[in-house]
Amino acid sequence: MTIKVGIIGATGHTGEELISVLLNHPEVRIAKLYNTSNEPQIISDVFPKFKNRIDQVCKKPDFNEISRECDLVFLALPHTVSMEYIPKLLKMGKRVIDLSADYRLKNIAVYEKYYKVAHKDKDNLKAAVYGLPEIYHAKIKSAKLVANPGCYPTCAILSLAPLVALNLIDLDSIIIDAKSGVSGAGKKIAKEFLFGEVYQDFKAYKVNVHQHIPEINQVLSKIAVKKINVTFVPHLLPIERGILETIYVKKADSFKLKAKNLISIYKKFYKNEPFVRVKAEGEFPRIKDVVETNFCDIGIKEEGDKVIIVSAIDNLLKGASGQAVQNMNIMYKLPENMGLA
Amino acid sequence: MTIKVGIIGATGHTGEELISVLLNHPEVRIAKLYNTSNEPQIISDVFPKFKNRIDQVCKKPDFNEISRECDLVFLALPHTVSMEYIPKLLKMGKRVIDLSADYRLKNIAVYEKYYKVAHKDKDNLKAAVYGLPEIYHAKIKSAKLVANPGCYPTCAILSLAPLVALNLIDLDSIIIDAKSGVSGAGKKIAKEFLFGEVYQDFKAYKVNVHQHIPEINQVLSKIAVKKINVTFVPHLLPIERGILETIYVKKADSFKLKAKNLISIYKKFYKNEPFVRVKAEGEFPRIKDVVETNFCDIGIKEEGDKVIIVSAIDNLLKGASGQAVQNMNIMYKLPENMGLA
Amino acid sequence: MTIKVGIIGATGHTGEELISVLLNHPEVRIAKLYNTSNEPQIISDVFPKFKNRIDQVCKKPDFNEISRECDLVFLALPHTVSMEYIPKLLKMGKRVIDLSADYRLKNIAVYEKYYKVAHKDKDNLKAAVYGLPEIYHAKIKSAKLVANPGCYPTCAILSLAPLVALNLIDLDSIIIDAKSGVSGAGKKIAKEFLFGEVYQDFKAYKVNVHQHIPEINQVLSKIAVKKINVTFVPHLLPIERGILETIYVKKADSFKLKAKNLISIYKKFYKNEPFVRVKAEGEFPRIKDVVETNFCDIGIKEEGDKVIIVSAIDNLLKGASGQAVQNMNIMYKLPENMGLA
Amino acid sequence: MTIKVGIIGATGHTGEELISVLLNHPEVRIAKLYNTSNEPQIISDVFPKFKNRIDQVCKKPDFNEISRECDLVFLALPHTVSMEYIPKLLKMGKRVIDLSADYRLKNIAVYEKYYKVAHKDKDNLKAAVYGLPEIYHAKIKSAKLVANPGCYPTCAILSLAPLVALNLIDLDSIIIDAKSGVSGAGKKIAKEFLFGEVYQDFKAYKVNVHQHIPEINQVLSKIAVKKINVTFVPHLLPIERGILETIYVKKADSFKLKAKNLISIYKKFYKNEPFVRVKAEGEFPRIKDVVETNFCDIGIKEEGDKVIIVSAIDNLLKGASGQAVQNMNIMYKLPENMGLA
Repeated sequence: MTIKVGIIGATGHTGEELISVLLNHPEVRIAKLYNTSNEPQIISDVFPKFKNRIDQVCKKPDFNEISRECDLVFLALPHTVSMEYIPKLLKMGKRVIDLSADYRLKNIAVYEKYYKVAHKDKDNLKAAVYGLPEIYHAKIKSAKLVANPGCYPTCAILSLAPLVALNLIDLDSIIIDAKSGVSGAGKKIAKEFLFGEVYQDFKAYKVNVHQHIPEINQVLSKIAVKKINVTFVPHLLPIERGILETIYVKKADSFKLKAKNLISIYKKFYKNEPFVRVKAEGEFPRIKDVVETNFCDIGIKEEGDKVIIVSAIDNLLKGASGQAVQNMNIMYKLPENMGLA
Repeated sequence: MTIKVGIIGATGHTGEELISVLLNHPEVRIAKLYNTSNEPQIISDVFPKFKNRIDQVCKKPDFNEISRECDLVFLALPHTVSMEYIPKLLKMGKRVIDLSADYRLKNIAVYEKYYKVAHKDKDNLKAAVYGLPEIYHAKIKSAKLVANPGCYPTCAILSLAPLVALNLIDLDSIIIDAKSGVSGAGKKIAKEFLFGEVYQDFKAYKVNVHQHIPEINQVLSKIAVKKINVTFVPHLLPIERGILETIYVKKADSFKLKAKNLISIYKKFYKNEPFVRVKAEGEFPRIKDVVETNFCDIGIKEEGDKVIIVSAIDNLLKGASGQAVQNMNIMYKLPENMGLA
Repeated sequence: MTIKVGIIGATGHTGEELISVLLNHPEVRIAKLYNTSNEPQIISDVFPKFKNRIDQVCKKPDFNEISRECDLVFLALPHTVSMEYIPKLLKMGKRVIDLSADYRLKNIAVYEKYYKVAHKDKDNLKAAVYGLPEIYHAKIKSAKLVANPGCYPTCAILSLAPLVALNLIDLDSIIIDAKSGVSGAGKKIAKEFLFGEVYQDFKAYKVNVHQHIPEINQVLSKIAVKKINVTFVPHLLPIERGILETIYVKKADSFKLKAKNLISIYKKFYKNEPFVRVKAEGEFPRIKDVVETNFCDIGIKEEGDKVIIVSAIDNLLKGASGQAVQNMNIMYKLPENMGLA
Repeated sequence: MTIKVGIIGATGHTGEELISVLLNHPEVRIAKLYNTSNEPQIISDVFPKFKNRIDQVCKKPDFNEISRECDLVFLALPHTVSMEYIPKLLKMGKRVIDLSADYRLKNIAVYEKYYKVAHKDKDNLKAAVYGLPEIYHAKIKSAKLVANPGCYPTCAILSLAPLVALNLIDLDSIIIDAKSGVSGAGKKIAKEFLFGEVYQDFKAYKVNVHQHIPEINQVLSKIAVKKINVTFVPHLLPIERGILETIYVKKADSFKLKAKNLISIYKKFYKNEPFVRVKAEGEFPRIKDVVETNFCDIGIKEEGDKVIIVSAIDNLLKGASGQAVQNMNIMYKLPENMGLA
C-alpha cells in the first residue's frame, strides 16, 4: 500500500516537520503540498534543507486536484483556518488529520472564549475524534476526522491519565508547571520571539489562561467522569524544541500505594503503547532524550501525600506532526510506529 | 572610609563575581585574594577578562597577612571548607561573610544529613546571622559572621515571606517549581555540565531532595512560628545565570483579599527594600530583567483558592555575591545599594 | 562637573546600552531621553530591567528643551535618520556624538551607494571627526560632531593599524573573516532574527558587500596613505553580543621581524591606550573576555609569509555605546575610562 | 542482504551517531556493540534516548564473537586506539571502517608529529583507502580498510577539489577559516568544554597548528600533483553540531571565468554525487540546512582576483558517522544514500 497524502499548510513549522517524517515513511507518497499564500513556492526554497530531497511546488489548495490525487489530507494550519477547508474535504470522502485546535474542544462556547472566533463547522465537530492514540486508539481507527492534540495537553494527559482513570488522586489538586521550547509558537514573526528576546531568558506566560487548559480539562474530566480544573502555568524555554512538564497532585484518601507500585501501575497502563516510556524509580525525563523522537517519557515520585510527575515530549513530533503520523498509521492499520522509530 | 576586603576562594564562580562587583564599589579596596590550590595564580590569568583591571596574585590564605591587611573577609568556598577557616578569622576579630552553606542551618543534624559531613564549628554556628537583608536587616548590622543565603532560598523566601508572615496561606500547601541556570553549580568539571549535555536540554534534578529545602523550611518556619515543609523541585536551564521560581500555594480559609490588594500587601511589605520590585497586576518577572542586577522581581496572581507567585533573581548576584556586598554595606552603615545599582 | 546628556533614540539597542553605561558614570546626569515614535513611553516600561533605576519618559525630540537642558546629545538612531536632527543640534551649539553611519564616510557617492539614500547634510559631514580614540584622540578632543565608528570597523582597524601604519604588509592582501552576535543588527523584527532562525545556526551574510567595508577601507587607506580594498566576509553567531575577527595578511617584502617583536610592536603602538589589550604569544582573544567591557583584545601569530590577527570586542560597547562614552570623556577632558572600567 | 555490523567504541559521540543512523538502515543489523571500559554497559543506559529502540549490552571487544557475528566493523575510537584493534580484524578477513585518524596520513613522520605517538601498524597503513566518496569512490568499493576522513578535511577538500583539480587557483594562497560546533571534540570532560565556558563565547583555537591541516594538505596535494600548504584557523562555535568553512583563494593567472561558470564547474564536478549541493549564485550555505543530514552545501563567489567559498556539513554525519555509512553502502554496492536520505 502507498498512501497518497496532501499537506495543507506545508510551509509552517508543523508542515516542515510532517514532511521530514513522511519522507522517511515507507508506505507514504507526499502527493501534494499546499500553502496559504497567493504565490506558489518551491518547498525547498522555503526550506533549503529539503533541496534534492523534495522539490515540489506548494500552491493554494486545489480541491479538484486533492480529490484526484490524495487519500489523506493533513492540515497544518493556524487555528481558525482549518475549519474553512475541512467540510469540503470530508464531503469529498477524504480522511483528514487536523493539527489545529479547531476540532479539539467539544464545547463551542469554550472554544469561542479561548480562541476568540466563532466556530464555523459545528456539524463535523461532534464526529471529530481526539487523536491521542494511547487513550482513543479504537476510535481513531475508524475516524474520518482526527483532531490532533495540542502539545501541552499530550504531555499532561499522558502523565495524568493513569492516576485519574484509577481514581488515585484529589482531582482538585492538579498543578501543571509546563516548559516549552520556542517552536511551540510556530514561526510567528513578533518581537517576543526574536533571538535577542529569548536567548539567555526564561519566563512564565499566559499564567493560568493558556488555551490548552480547556483541552486538558475536557479530556481528563471525561476520563474521570467528573469535572476537573487544572492549574496550568506555561513557561518559555530558550531552546528550539521540547516540552517538559512537572506535575504536582495530592493523593486521594484512598491512595495506599508505594512508589514502586505507582511506577508499575504506569507501566501496566501503557504496556502496549510503543511511544510511552516509564522511567525507573529515581530517574526522570529530560528533553534531550525525547527530542527528534515520538516518545513521551514519564518519571514518577511519591512524597508524603503528594505525587510528582515529570514528563517530556518533542512538541513538534509527539506534540504535533509525529502524533499525526501515528494517527495515520492507526487509521491505515499500519504498525503504529512505522516511519517514526 | 575604605574597607579593605580579602576574598578566600577568589578563583571560583562566586569569587569571580565578587571581584567584578567590588571593582565598582567606591568604598572598597580589594586588599588580598586567596585560592585554595598549592600554586599561586595571577587572578587575570585565571580570568583573562580582568587583565589590566586587577592583576593581583592569589595564593593560599596567610592569616598573618589577613590580620594586617583586611578589615572584612569574604569566603567564596565550597561547602564544608569554610568552617575550616572561619574560627580563626573570627578569633582575629575580622568580620566575615561566608557564601557557603556551612553556617546557614541551625540544626546540625539537618546540616549533616544534607551535606554529608560532620559540622566542625558548632560554637560559631549559633551566632551566625542569616544574611537575607529584607528579613534580617537589624541583625546583619551588628553581625560578626554572616551566613550568606543560598540562591534558591533567597528567591523562595522573598516570594513567600509576606504570605507567611501575614498568615494568609495554608502552610502545608507550598509547592516551589524552581529553574536555575548552570552557574548555580559553580565551575565543577563533570559530564553533566558539559556544553553538549546542557545545550538544548532541560531537566528536573534532585527532585524534592535538594539541600536548599531545609534552608527554606528553617527560615519560613521561623517567620510563621510553625513548622513548614515545602515541596521543591529544581530544574536546570540551558543558560548561564538566573533563577526563576513559580510557586503555588493554597489560600488560608481566612484569606479574603483581591489580587489588587495582594500586590499592595507585597509592595507595602517591601516598601523600604531597594532590591525587591513587585510587578503590577498581569505582569510577571523574566530572567532577562534581573540578570547582572541585584534585584528580586516578584509577580503575583490569584486564581480561585490558589495564589501563584513568579519570582526571579540573578543567582550569582542577589543569590550570592551581590547579596554578600549588600550585607557588607549594611554592616558598614553604607547605603545598601552602594556598588550594586 | 556634571555633563547633562540627552539621548535621541533611547529605546533601541545602542540607546539601551548607553543608558546602562551612563547610569554608572559619576560625572553624567541623563537629562532627557527621546524616542522617534509618536507615543511617549516610560523607559522602564520599554526595558523593565531599568525599573527603579531610571523611570523617565521618552518622547519625540523637543529642541527647545534640548537647548535648555542638555550639554551633549547622543544620537542612537537608524542610519539616515541622524542627519535629520544633527544640523539643528549643531546650530544650537550642542556637542553631538552620532552612533549612526551618517557622518562616517567622507565620500558621499560611497555613502549613497552603500546606504541607498541621498546624503542631506554635506555641510557638517566634512567637519565630523571619526571617533576612534586610539587613532584620532587629538581631533576628538575638540570635535563638535563625532561620528562614532561601526562595530566591525572598530575591531578591524585596531587590529590592522600598526601593520598598516608601519608599512609591514602587502596592502592588497587583507582578508577579514568577521563573526558577530545578533545584537549587531539592532532590534529589527524580521524572520531572519527569530530565535528559531539563529539558534543552532551559523552563516555568512553580505559576502564582501557589507556597508562597513568602505568605512574600513577609508580609515586604513588614510593611515597607509594608499588606497586599500579589504576582502570582508561577516558571519552571524548564535549569541547576543560580541565580535571576533580573524584577519589574514601577507607580509611586505620588507618585513623581517619575529613574532615576539610583532607583539612588541603592537604593545608599543597601543601603550597609552586603556582599552586595547595585546595578548602574549600563543594566546588569542575570545568573546567571553571582552563582553560587557570596552576592551579590544588582540592576538597575533606569524606563519611563514603571513600574519594572522585575531581580535575581539563587545559590539555594543567598544563597538558602539562604550566607545561613544569614551569619546565623550575625551571631549570633556575626563579620564578616558571613567564610567567604563 | 543484511549486513551484520559491529561497532567498537559505541559509547562515544560518533558511536552514538552511528547507532542512530544504522537503526534506520534497511539492510543493516547492529550485531554487536563494544565499549573500551572494563564494565559492561547497556547502551540505552548510556544514551537513554535509545530506550525501547536498542537495549543491547556493550562490553569489551571479543574477537571470537566478532569473527562469528559481524561482517563489517566500525571503529569509533579515540585516535591511537584504533590501530590496536585493526590488524586483528583485517587478519580475520573483516571489512573495517575506521573513524579515527590512525590510517588517514600516509606519511608516518607527519602522523607522529601531529598525534604525538608512534604509529604501530605501518603494514596496513599503506593499503588503507581514504574514505571521501566524492573523490575516491572507485577505491572505496574494493577497500578492506577505509580511513574515514576528518570533519574539517571533508568540508575543506570538497570545497576546493574542483578548483585544485582544474588548476584554477594559486595553490599557495589557500586560507581556510573554519568554525565548528562543540561535538567535534567528542565527549571529553574538560574545563574548556563546560557549558559555562562555551555558551555566549566564540574563539579561535589551535591557530594554524590543528592536526587536520596535514590531512587537508595530503589530499589536496595529491589532487594537484603539487605540494600544497593551506593556512587553517579553526574556531569553536557555541552550538552542538555543524561546521561552516569560509575559504579564500587567489585565482591562478590562467583563470578567466565568470562566477556563473564557476558555479557550473562545481555543479558539473559533483553532478553524480548525491550529497553535494552547490548553491545558486548569491546563495550561501548555513549550518541549519545541513544539520542532521549527510549533505555538504557549497556556495561560491568571485571577487576580483579572489574566490570565496563557503561550505557547511554536519560534523557528526558527513564529517564522521554518516560518511562512514556512505562508505559502507559503497563497499556493499548498495545505493550510496541508503539509510541517509
